[in-house]
Amino acid sequence: MLHPDVHPDPTVAHRVATRTGPAQPTPDAVATLHPLGLDDVRLDPAGLLGQWQARNAAATLPHCVAQLDRAGALDNLRRLRDRDGNGGNGNGDRDGNGGNGNGDGCGAFTGMWFSDSDVYKTLEAAAWELARPQPGTELRDFLESTVALLAQVQDADGYLNSYVMAERPDRRWQELHWSHELYCAGHLFQAAVATARVGVGNSLETVARRLADLLLDRFGPDGVEAVCGHPEVETALVELYRSTGHRPYLNLARRFVDLRGRGLLNAERFGPVYLQDHVPVRDADEVAGHAVRQLYLLAGVVDVAVETGDHSLLAAARRLWDSAYLTKTYVTGAHGSRHRDEAYGDPYELPPDRAYAETCAAVASFQWNWRMLLADGAHRYADEMERVLYNAVAGSTALDGTHFFYSNPLQLRTGHDGSDSDAPDRRMPWYACACCPPNLARLMASLQAYTASGDGHGVQLHLYAAGTVHATVHGRPVRVTVRTGYPWAGRVEVGVRAESTEPWTLALRIPGWCQDYRVEADGADVTVDDGYLRLTRDWSSGTVTLELAMPPRLVAAHPYVDAVRGCLALIRGPLVYCLEQADLPPGTRLEDVRLDPAAPLGTAEVAGGPPDAVALTVGGIVAPPGPAALYRAGTTPPTGSGARIRLSAVPYFLWGNRDPGPMRVWIPVDTDTSTGTDTSTGTDTSTGAGAVRTDRRPHPGGAG
Amino acid sequence: MLHPDVHPDPTVAHRVATRTGPAQPTPDAVATLHPLGLDDVRLDPAGLLGQWQARNAAATLPHCVAQLDRAGALDNLRRLRDRDGNGGNGNGDRDGNGGNGNGDGCGAFTGMWFSDSDVYKTLEAAAWELARPQPGTELRDFLESTVALLAQVQDADGYLNSYVMAERPDRRWQELHWSHELYCAGHLFQAAVATARVGVGNSLETVARRLADLLLDRFGPDGVEAVCGHPEVETALVELYRSTGHRPYLNLARRFVDLRGRGLLNAERFGPVYLQDHVPVRDADEVAGHAVRQLYLLAGVVDVAVETGDHSLLAAARRLWDSAYLTKTYVTGAHGSRHRDEAYGDPYELPPDRAYAETCAAVASFQWNWRMLLADGAHRYADEMERVLYNAVAGSTALDGTHFFYSNPLQLRTGHDGSDSDAPDRRMPWYACACCPPNLARLMASLQAYTASGDGHGVQLHLYAAGTVHATVHGRPVRVTVRTGYPWAGRVEVGVRAESTEPWTLALRIPGWCQDYRVEADGADVTVDDGYLRLTRDWSSGTVTLELAMPPRLVAAHPYVDAVRGCLALIRGPLVYCLEQADLPPGTRLEDVRLDPAAPLGTAEVAGGPPDAVALTVGGIVAPPGPAALYRAGTTPPTGSGARIRLSAVPYFLWGNRDPGPMRVWIPVDTDTSTGTDTSTGTDTSTGAGAVRTDRRPHPGGAG
Repeated sequence: MLHPDVHPDPTVAHRVATRTGPAQPTPDAVATLHPLGLDDVRLDPAGLLGQWQARNAAATLPHCVAQLDRAGALDNLRRLRDRDGNGGNGNGDRDGNGGNGNGDGCGAFTGMWFSDSDVYKTLEAAAWELARPQPGTELRDFLESTVALLAQVQDADGYLNSYVMAERPDRRWQELHWSHELYCAGHLFQAAVATARVGVGNSLETVARRLADLLLDRFGPDGVEAVCGHPEVETALVELYRSTGHRPYLNLARRFVDLRGRGLLNAERFGPVYLQDHVPVRDADEVAGHAVRQLYLLAGVVDVAVETGDHSLLAAARRLWDSAYLTKTYVTGAHGSRHRDEAYGDPYELPPDRAYAETCAAVASFQWNWRMLLADGAHRYADEMERVLYNAVAGSTALDGTHFFYSNPLQLRTGHDGSDSDAPDRRMPWYACACCPPNLARLMASLQAYTASGDGHGVQLHLYAAGTVHATVHGRPVRVTVRTGYPWAGRVEVGVRAESTEPWTLALRIPGWCQDYRVEADGADVTVDDGYLRLTRDWSSGTVTLELAMPPRLVAAHPYVDAVRGCLALIRGPLVYCLEQADLPPGTRLEDVRLDPAAPLGTAEVAGGPPDAVALTVGGIVAPPGPAALYRAGTTPPTGSGARIRLSAVPYFLWGNRDPGPMRVWIPVDTDTSTGTDTSTGTDTSTGAGAVRTDRRPHPGGAG
Repeated sequence: MLHPDVHPDPTVAHRVATRTGPAQPTPDAVATLHPLGLDDVRLDPAGLLGQWQARNAAATLPHCVAQLDRAGALDNLRRLRDRDGNGGNGNGDRDGNGGNGNGDGCGAFTGMWFSDSDVYKTLEAAAWELARPQPGTELRDFLESTVALLAQVQDADGYLNSYVMAERPDRRWQELHWSHELYCAGHLFQAAVATARVGVGNSLETVARRLADLLLDRFGPDGVEAVCGHPEVETALVELYRSTGHRPYLNLARRFVDLRGRGLLNAERFGPVYLQDHVPVRDADEVAGHAVRQLYLLAGVVDVAVETGDHSLLAAARRLWDSAYLTKTYVTGAHGSRHRDEAYGDPYELPPDRAYAETCAAVASFQWNWRMLLADGAHRYADEMERVLYNAVAGSTALDGTHFFYSNPLQLRTGHDGSDSDAPDRRMPWYACACCPPNLARLMASLQAYTASGDGHGVQLHLYAAGTVHATVHGRPVRVTVRTGYPWAGRVEVGVRAESTEPWTLALRIPGWCQDYRVEADGADVTVDDGYLRLTRDWSSGTVTLELAMPPRLVAAHPYVDAVRGCLALIRGPLVYCLEQADLPPGTRLEDVRLDPAAPLGTAEVAGGPPDAVALTVGGIVAPPGPAALYRAGTTPPTGSGARIRLSAVPYFLWGNRDPGPMRVWIPVDTDTSTGTDTSTGTDTSTGAGAVRTDRRPHPGGAG
């Protein structure tokens, strides 16, 4: 039964035109699904996704703006404006009215040579956020002053890169394997696209196009054959094409994609694999090298493929998707197994303790999968978006919204050196390499745009979030209202209104993790197709209640994942759980804890945690401390005589919000009790599983 | 029964005076045991250690000499001699007669900025090798010409470092966190000590002392407080003191040890832990940071401690030994769990696939343990020497003696990118950072000196090798002849001759891995004490036969070693074994192989391998390929219905001598058959275990 206030707004159509959000294929693109407009989806701030978006607006984004000043990223640009002489600024504008007064521009270049990208990503986040009403003018002031600053310091020929202009003016475009010049340009383009789509800071598009036109001159069909060491410009150029309609930008993106893998980059330091320059994209069958670079590249590959109708390129992307998600992805959805080179490892090399699992790679995975979902419409992409969002992405940010993990391990041991800047045991307010926080900010500010889609004949709900979705079906407006406590509860109440009585299809995703569900479809014709429940009827007024059985379940990794052999993970719904030292009795060492897989699983409140948050409970054993020897003769570990204990696990995304301490996602199984019981369909304590209609489907790429 | 030719040499005393070898404590040092002279021990080239030493002389050392030229390390020094002007060389000697004619000295500095150390380590190896008769003059020519070159290019004030002199002459001693200046100096000192002890290239000691005296001026008690980012000079200065008797060198070594851990190094890039500059040695309780640096430092710590009678420093070394060998050492004896920073990980962080396990760290562990053994006389140090020598050290070198691993993983997966220069799937002839091959050369050239010791009252055999040991006991010469096929067989036949009839004690180490042995002591009084069998009698003529039961055994890691949970290693004697793809039936994937721990273990020949080499056989199961999903609901892996197979394992040190391919030391156990059977005392197919006297002892630090 629907709550009476599911439909608070009696008007179906909210407005005639809607602004567009990120990743907006053109009408000519090869696409199964189409994004809805930026304003078409509103997240209810009472829901978890809405909370995250609100926290981003209230805490993360202002924090990023402030940190850009503190870390010197804005000063790097201001210095170009304020310096004497004419070093690179051909605009002749030196009155400084673009500055925000926080920096005098004195001093040397500060921070990473690609710090401009931090500014651009924050601008992009600000643009998406400015699509919603703001409590003050600070964000708009930041955006406008920064856009003005960029316009001021851009060189007469369109060049713009504060590091190269200040420190290596004679080395423009000369060290693309290293310089991040095109990477920074790409983030400028994405920021400009966001401002243009939202209708703020419009002069940024002018700045972006001047630089993009310079790229066309230099790297276009008559220009130099080159690619950037850090992909990003590819997807950005396609978006700039989508936003401006200027096809040469798309062609240049395709050119960059096609030139990759031909050894054009100086790979002396890191090797060509690190740079994805070892094999042409069309020939690649394994994701490899620096994870963020690989994933950004793949986002661009899909963008190029769908806009040019390049099916062989799309096939390569699907093949690389298999490589990534069948052999190289953490159960949290994170990517990158190696600290060294921030890289993918070999297939099945997924150590939980040394997981690099960079936050930016998680964001990039989300973005790539969204593009694949639009292209193919297959549920596996939405499954991965959900998994990475609720675990790797969400876990990177502290409850306060102003502290972040750069890498996101799945285990911290007793004795871990928490002061290790490479693997700290707590989230930090900022990083010397500050790519992650503004990346989170731009994703969260536009998060609503990724939750649903349309295809002209219906509406598809991919990520369940309390909120409202407007769309146009058969040319007529429809409104879908979602009321749910997801992911804490599996009940999703959907109210639909449409102006027309013509039947159309509302598609509800059945998550890959879900093995049982019940639907009350209000008379609709129901089919199940590739992970989506497709409900067809006259939706002029209707309601649907979907009950996703959400029992806690134990999940095992593929036997090839050596690093977690003999361990199980606790999962409920889309949420991966973990054990933290803080939840163990005093004196109990986390490494001594074993899981009893035969014990019943339960749910509980998260002690001191957010309201609604659900903890899991499971039986365990505290193994007695064995001999100190590191290696010993014999075939089985000492076990079986330990004390029984009830374990409490918290959602992984909430870990590290108490005192720093050991944590683990993968829990060793007590071998005396590992009798092979499959508890994945065990008692569900949160939904009425007894009445659930069983519809088990295998999801090869899903988390069980 | 002894073979009749056990005592081929009727003369007990081989000569009056003997030259000394590496790590030679003074008579005043705190020492339980004393090294024998360099010429006191001869390895029979028929035994494995003798084979390795002979291969080193015939292949590895000439290869190193040639590579120094090819890689430019010698040219870096020649360039200082040949350049015009007076940049740094105050000797006025420019006739070039020290050169070997292979390089003209033109061009820029080549290779790593610490390439001098490659030259010095090769010189040290040459010196040790020149203690034995040579087939030609090449080695002596190399040594003498290089020593002459060094004397020529040394600065008037004694400074010597080809990189700094050529590239950064104004930065002498200014960047010790990075420059390796004292590290290079240390290796020069060690080379000089070796030449002095052997009696070759004597002018090298003059070069070394001139530089050492410059260090005294700058860093001595009235000088700058500083330490080197890469420890090495500490142990080298003590050795230089031992060789010259000049106590200020010892005092400077102590000063460097005491100044460490006080934040004197610029740790901006790597952090202080990497440099072991985060805590004073006396306060440290955990080995950490760059593994080679940590281990070289600890060698120096022990040298300082024993020469100054500093018991608190020795206690710190023992404490750090516990940290290293109870929580951070691979079953192969290797050290260093992280590619990033070439570093130790957290306790129990020992991934087999990403083991960095640098060859130099293995050499350093051997050297540190030898120093600990001399100081304390405890078997655990000899156990570690044996383990690391037969596995991590030996495995680094190809059968041909001219190809080497830099890192020594315990697993290569199917699909490993063997072209990854960071983790190649085959041994390379040389490395851009070429520290390892010459390190191996100097160890192997002096290997005999580490196998036995004396204490004035007897002789101790630590590493069993076919050969002859001369020593002085109670002032009178004795000779011990060892005949054994160790480590392929556990039978050790020892013949003893002494000029005196006064009783003394022959100590034979019972390896930590050995749980059963039998001894025929020829009437000696037998006691067992701290891992040594102590046999006391009048040894004017006697024989001992020690039969070490050497059954293949299965070894498990401590449950905290998450990375190999559910796996067992195959070990026989001191040798760790591994499975290689080359030994599997076609079409069988190594990752599908499971070990049946209840199946009998056996031995076999190594197909196509060295004579005498022993392979192990064990029952296994080829698990059927499961579903492709990376994660799935459920508690147990699919297993039990696979095909039974007889597995053949080769000694780890022999891996990678056939076609490159997957390899693993830790073998997953088939869970259906893991019934807890302890097979460590299973049937021994190589020795008459039925008659063995059982004397089980726990060895907390040993490999089972």
